[in-house]
Amino acid sequence: MDGFYERTTKDSINIDPLQTGGKLSEAARRALVEWGDGYSVCDFCPGTLDQIKTPPIYNFIHEELPEFLGCDVARVTNGAREGKFAIMHGVSSSYKCEKKAVVMDANAHYSSYVAAERAGLKVLLVPNSGYPEYKMDPEGYSEAIDSNDVVLALVTYPDGNYGNLPDVRKIAKICRKKGVPLLLNAAYAVGRMPVKMKELGADFIVGSGHKSMASAGPVGVMGMKEEFADLILRKSERHPAKEVELLGCTARGVTIMTLIASFPHVKSRIKKWGKEVEKARYFSKQVERFGIIQLGEKPHNHDLMFFESEILYNISKKAKGGRFFLYRELKKRRIHGIKPGLTRYFKLSTYGLRKEEIEYVINSFEEIISKYTKTAENN
Amino acid sequence: MDGFYERTTKDSINIDPLQTGGKLSEAARRALVEWGDGYSVCDFCPGTLDQIKTPPIYNFIHEELPEFLGCDVARVTNGAREGKFAIMHGVSSSYKCEKKAVVMDANAHYSSYVAAERAGLKVLLVPNSGYPEYKMDPEGYSEAIDSNDVVLALVTYPDGNYGNLPDVRKIAKICRKKGVPLLLNAAYAVGRMPVKMKELGADFIVGSGHKSMASAGPVGVMGMKEEFADLILRKSERHPAKEVELLGCTARGVTIMTLIASFPHVKSRIKKWGKEVEKARYFSKQVERFGIIQLGEKPHNHDLMFFESEILYNISKKAKGGRFFLYRELKKRRIHGIKPGLTRYFKLSTYGLRKEEIEYVINSFEEIISKYTKTAENN
Repeated sequence: MDGFYERTTKDSINIDPLQTGGKLSEAARRALVEWGDGYSVCDFCPGTLDQIKTPPIYNFIHEELPEFLGCDVARVTNGAREGKFAIMHGVSSSYKCEKKAVVMDANAHYSSYVAAERAGLKVLLVPNSGYPEYKMDPEGYSEAIDSNDVVLALVTYPDGNYGNLPDVRKIAKICRKKGVPLLLNAAYAVGRMPVKMKELGADFIVGSGHKSMASAGPVGVMGMKEEFADLILRKSERHPAKEVELLGCTARGVTIMTLIASFPHVKSRIKKWGKEVEKARYFSKQVERFGIIQLGEKPHNHDLMFFESEILYNISKKAKGGRFFLYRELKKRRIHGIKPGLTRYFKLSTYGLRKEEIEYVINSFEEIISKYTKTAENN
Repeated sequence: MDGFYERTTKDSINIDPLQTGGKLSEAARRALVEWGDGYSVCDFCPGTLDQIKTPPIYNFIHEELPEFLGCDVARVTNGAREGKFAIMHGVSSSYKCEKKAVVMDANAHYSSYVAAERAGLKVLLVPNSGYPEYKMDPEGYSEAIDSNDVVLALVTYPDGNYGNLPDVRKIAKICRKKGVPLLLNAAYAVGRMPVKMKELGADFIVGSGHKSMASAGPVGVMGMKEEFADLILRKSERHPAKEVELLGCTARGVTIMTLIASFPHVKSRIKKWGKEVEKARYFSKQVERFGIIQLGEKPHNHDLMFFESEILYNISKKAKGGRFFLYRELKKRRIHGIKPGLTRYFKLSTYGLRKEEIEYVINSFEEIISKYTKTAENN
């Protein structure tokens, strides 16, 4: 008897936005097997993870990653949320007894909110524009910062619900004027599309290896301006080589080695970002013909898209299996990624899908809608 | 071009204590390939990781793990240190502005110290007995607790330097009498040897998947008594399904799936713990014949052992390559795990080694010593 379980979705076309950017590259698949044992990289450790020269972790963390993220100092974390918490906790640690605040966009991921709660920060949400585009107005940051004792601002680029790309440059300008550092949550950007922290005017950036950098999870990246390194990466008093906010060490094993293995692939794929946006727009345009309407920014600038579909919702009211009909119909066609039970509102991603796969998904939606509307007409 | 690197130590006999308990089982090797893609388990997530029914993560976290750890409530974390920090941070969050203290054994791992620093706790170290056994006297906890404002005690079972197993039952009794909860850092115990939190009288326990549970890293386990669950696993105000100290989610991918895959193997191997202790004692006895003297508890009760070796140190003063001679000689014999440059003091582990491998390592030490002492005599 063993504890092995099959991953039943592995042969599907997966359009879950969580999955499309985290599929391993071929090199990462090899790294997985090579570096699978627990603490595999620690065989080569001189005392801290980022100082390992062979395999070239030092070079990755101190040379390649800062250049890629457009920042001064970078580290590998256990995920984007762990990076956000390290930054928030580091920033707020100077104000232990005062209830300070962090400002973030209303579209922020739940983990940004939870990281702030854990760090003891009050959260102020900058509202979005509401239906149908849910866009962020940079001026909202100005108002939120003025009304409170704010030590950090966060913007989600893009957010994980609508795939909107807010105007970070404008937000950064406002924050800089008010003396508040800006953290860019780029979990859906870093590894998918070009993004440079300093060019956008931000002070911190986090990305996700398992979400968007073709790595085994959990693993993330974190970048910052030099001036914040002493605070966020402060060393232990007793163990002077160990960084306190990283608990001395983070991704010690297969996660960092798949991240490094996929890095050349990732650097090369972001150059084709224009094609990914084209594919997303094409998909959006095609399914709108059947009454599946894309919300969020239009024309859209990211592979993550949110849809509203009255037609699928209406079908679900009468279909066998009720609201689960869509999940089942897609599953039959080996398409995975829309959560069971959703029909009226759902998100998906076209990232990395081949042209034929996109056509196949579009045709599947058309076929499903046509099947159920015909049945209804015949009744 | 890709970013794949070879793991040059993979065909060695690895006696690094960090490595011997983290080697993947066959089932875990299969899980690695099956669940390698980034967020692979999230295809099956109804909202929180511990609620995934298929694969049986729910059953693992809520049934198997509490039973295995001998606790009421368990969670999977990103590592033992992350569990320690979650517990310390949770416990200290009620005392935000007061400088409280945590008491821990002088043999504690650096990450226990760093976790306390991160949580804003003052650290009080209970001294050990010093050379040659470095044992912990439970009474030391009593004194440390009396002299300070202590909110948590921690004991390392066994410690990662000498492999000593302190008398947790006595320490727990003292802590209970004084109203201080006790955290058991069992990163070198859980998955290697039988250990049950409540039987030992502790309130919290942490273990390490990559260190001692035959898993890909980083991943860990955390257990506690029911009465602490509300504090440590408190939910987010805005996102009521998400646990704040876990940032909403932890080991979302290959790490938890290798942990689960190896679990039957791990449950079965701890039954053979007596044999592992026998092997360690045999090794210790044999190498002492050549002047490699085991420090720490004697007779020893764990596979992790610390040695003092004047003879190897003396050789290093004259040998070609100086203090690196031992590393090189062992490397030639495909034995890995003693850090380059160490000769006088070093630790190693015999865990999981086959009888022939243990003999081979013993003979290698004998051969190396004999080679260099003969050379010296001939000069």
